[in-house]
Amino acid sequence: LVAVRLSERLEQQIKFIVEVDKLKNIYRKNLVIGSERPETDAEHSWHLAMMAMLLAEHVTSCRIDVLKIIKMVLIHDIVEIDAGDTYCYDQQAGLDKAAREQAAADRLFGLLPAGQSQELRALWDEFEQKQSPEARMADALDRLQPLLLHYHTGGKSWQENGINADQVRERNRQTRGIAAELGLLVEQIIEDSVAKGYLPK
Amino acid sequence: LVAVRLSERLEQQIKFIVEVDKLKNIYRKNLVIGSERPETDAEHSWHLAMMAMLLAEHVTSCRIDVLKIIKMVLIHDIVEIDAGDTYCYDQQAGLDKAAREQAAADRLFGLLPAGQSQELRALWDEFEQKQSPEARMADALDRLQPLLLHYHTGGKSWQENGINADQVRERNRQTRGIAAELGLLVEQIIEDSVAKGYLPK
Ligand SMILES: [Ca+2]
Repeated sequence: LVAVRLSERLEQQIKFIVEVDKLKNIYRKNLVIGSERPETDAEHSWHLAMMAMLLAEHVTSCRIDVLKIIKMVLIHDIVEIDAGDTYCYDQQAGLDKAAREQAAADRLFGLLPAGQSQELRALWDEFEQKQSPEARMADALDRLQPLLLHYHTGGKSWQENGINADQVRERNRQTRGIAAELGLLVEQIIEDSVAKGYLPK
Repeated sequence: LVAVRLSERLEQQIKFIVEVDKLKNIYRKNLVIGSERPETDAEHSWHLAMMAMLLAEHVTSCRIDVLKIIKMVLIHDIVEIDAGDTYCYDQQAGLDKAAREQAAADRLFGLLPAGQSQELRALWDEFEQKQSPEARMADALDRLQPLLLHYHTGGKSWQENGINADQVRERNRQTRGIAAELGLLVEQIIEDSVAKGYLPK
């Protein structure tokens, strides 16, 4: 038998790692391409990290820290473990979203050992404030990724939720400010979605 | 109408990003804690990236590049889009696994633009060779993560597949060489799984 005790630090890390497994049980509004089942928050976060790695070069106006963007997107949704997924076009649920998510951040990041607890909480706060270049890029990707999935599933969940092109345009309005070519991409997807009848004007 | 053409580079990146969405349709043998449905490859890859970020400090014998480990684990399973998930204890399917995965890597990384195509392929090759510290840590996490899920789902999928403690021990044998304390953790989980009746000796 292994008599040696694990450090408290490792035990805290493993507790957090097991706790965030719950992100695989939180379903989003958008569908996965092909199977057309709803995507989980964990899958969404993986896809964002992949996109951050490949698309960070499109931020041309300043130097950005790619590892920081990746860390942000890996953790950006974990508060939904307690607070649930608030649909981005649901204004009612949006009202107390901030308070619910702050409490969730306190509990979840509080599971981590010293140093990591503060580092990840600071990254999440930075993401939420959407001011730094890294946070603005993470936010732009967080809006572009579901747009790609909506487009490649024929806009099914846009139609089910009665979304129109102006709402999608408004939701992705900030993208061109941080990554001009991604802003163009967004506009092309919206126009093509309207042309194909996926999205009403 | 947006008349401006997107660069070929961005179009290649988006094509790859849409293609790898298929990782959400590949199901693994291990179960998600709580819901007890099989985990997808995308979810597994997200969980590994989270673990890399938190546990990289347990590699104490040398300096390692955390961003490199995270990139590796984000892409390590995309070859399964073409080659399928080969169950780690299935020796028959393991025989032509390498050839199937090499062909998949050629096709998938070939979708990316110059520079990124070579960078990601080199990372995947490095992961497969399991020689560098980053590859050895990525590999250790790729084995530890399902162990945590098996343990927290009562060993259900171990039992369904007739796995015993020695097989799990053998599968995680290399962990202590790259991260001694994670090696201890592995042994404690195996012993506790045997004690609780999740895993036969
Ligand atoms: Ca695998």
